[in-house]
Amino acid sequence: MSRKIVECIPNFSAARDKRAVTKIRDAIRHVPGVRVLDVESDDDHNRSVMTFVGTPEAAIEAAYQAIAAAAKYIDMDKHRGAHPRLGATDVVPFVPIQNMEMAEAVTLARALGQRVAETLQIPVYLYEEAATRPDRRNLENIRRGEYEGLQQRIATDPDRVPDFGPRVLGKAGATVIGARNPLIAFNVYLNTDDVHIAKRIARTIRYSSGGFRYVKAMGLLVEGQAQVSMNLTNFRKTPVHLVVETIRREAARYGAMISRSELIGLVPQDAILAAAKWYLQTDNLTSELVLENRLYGDEI
Amino acid sequence: MSRKIVECIPNFSAARDKRAVTKIRDAIRHVPGVRVLDVESDDDHNRSVMTFVGTPEAAIEAAYQAIAAAAKYIDMDKHRGAHPRLGATDVVPFVPIQNMEMAEAVTLARALGQRVAETLQIPVYLYEEAATRPDRRNLENIRRGEYEGLQQRIATDPDRVPDFGPRVLGKAGATVIGARNPLIAFNVYLNTDDVHIAKRIARTIRYSSGGFRYVKAMGLLVEGQAQVSMNLTNFRKTPVHLVVETIRREAARYGAMISRSELIGLVPQDAILAAAKWYLQTDNLTSELVLENRLYGDEI
Repeated sequence: MSRKIVECIPNFSAARDKRAVTKIRDAIRHVPGVRVLDVESDDDHNRSVMTFVGTPEAAIEAAYQAIAAAAKYIDMDKHRGAHPRLGATDVVPFVPIQNMEMAEAVTLARALGQRVAETLQIPVYLYEEAATRPDRRNLENIRRGEYEGLQQRIATDPDRVPDFGPRVLGKAGATVIGARNPLIAFNVYLNTDDVHIAKRIARTIRYSSGGFRYVKAMGLLVEGQAQVSMNLTNFRKTPVHLVVETIRREAARYGAMISRSELIGLVPQDAILAAAKWYLQTDNLTSELVLENRLYGDEI
Repeated sequence: MSRKIVECIPNFSAARDKRAVTKIRDAIRHVPGVRVLDVESDDDHNRSVMTFVGTPEAAIEAAYQAIAAAAKYIDMDKHRGAHPRLGATDVVPFVPIQNMEMAEAVTLARALGQRVAETLQIPVYLYEEAATRPDRRNLENIRRGEYEGLQQRIATDPDRVPDFGPRVLGKAGATVIGARNPLIAFNVYLNTDDVHIAKRIARTIRYSSGGFRYVKAMGLLVEGQAQVSMNLTNFRKTPVHLVVETIRREAARYGAMISRSELIGLVPQDAILAAAKWYLQTDNLTSELVLENRLYGDEI
């Protein structure tokens, strides 16, 4: 049996300040038992997304150290950027990757939230699978009004009472912590410059307008090519191949075709296996049959 | 950069004698740096196939120890079984898996062959990528006449001069050692009991009758269902999805469809990625983007 592995993808309100980004990244790196997979900084958003994996114990420690570093090096009163945000550490999702149930990721999120609130005096809101109220499952709801708006209302608005921590915002702002399924960011390009086709297809496939339950989608024009841009929020329940085949059929309805697709960021192996299994009709294909999966032991 | 890993899949002429199988398996297992992935014994064939992976140095040592154990515990004069065979250790292919070129696997095969011949006095023939003569690339050519036939001819027939070792057969027989690409054993079932459709499709897709270069195929009736049974000998040059889509089209030509397919044994991750990439048209999909591939270090 392989060991428990959790992924954590904290988002920080810093990008232009390279020193702050480095300090936060190093705070994660220095914790034994975690491995930083990716750091992406966007200067327009003035925001950095860090991805790391580790054992549950190591991941919670690394997330805490990163939040503490962000509180030290980021001043939200001075922060400007295109992306909505509530705090220096804006959002911290935990994603169960290996040998872990969602319930364990939820426990992890809540334990981190309590520690951050008590030790750093940062208000914490729990979201998605860790949410304590239905209206807090959705990150956008919690983040409404952003840092500046929350500053006005946190002390008085009963809807803005944090799950942990004080009803007052310091310069580190508030942090949203939670647990969710792996998310696949996936774009499909059509062989047309007609963005309306991409917008119509997005409407057909996305949950919010009657489509698949775990699909968020919008239609864009990217470098002159119509693109259906998606977040697939639960690939086990709404698989990638089902979405792609539906886009293919809908595109044909408008006289268009898929010219290519692209992954943004990492993809769980199971999503790839599920697609190959479906198309090749290989009913016995599981991760157990993949040679490379037998090469490694339990080391991280 | 990850370390070099080679796979080795030796075939031994023992299955009914469980003690011999155990002794051979343990000879491999006791070498540090290798991991036994699979042991499959077929009593009808009276033959066992063992699969292990390791560093090049460890793999050559483990293969040598296994060949020595097989020579000790198997007497080819007494061996009976349905599968063609030349020796106690019948065939030993090395397959480059990670961070290794084919040329290195060939070097490994030849080094093992020399050691086996010199230390154990077993005649060794080199095959596939390690072959020294074109007529020895094909295992079937080398194995013609089997152990009993080779006994008659090894001393006199110039075509049967071994690559290493004496021109005389002991009770361990001869061993064929070589290097090859990963092989995918793959069966496709049709929704018909008409075996002639499977046979016709097999003829269309296999190399020997004009089909794809790296496909061996035959049509069978398996539990009342027509089956196209294949070995895909180079999935990078002749990919699985190309073969499946061709079978699909050919089956339709005869009014049939694919009902399912199955993998026999392990499959390299790259073969699965290539299929998902092709069907989903995800041009940027590489093994680098698979989350699990980032989890592990260089340990085996």
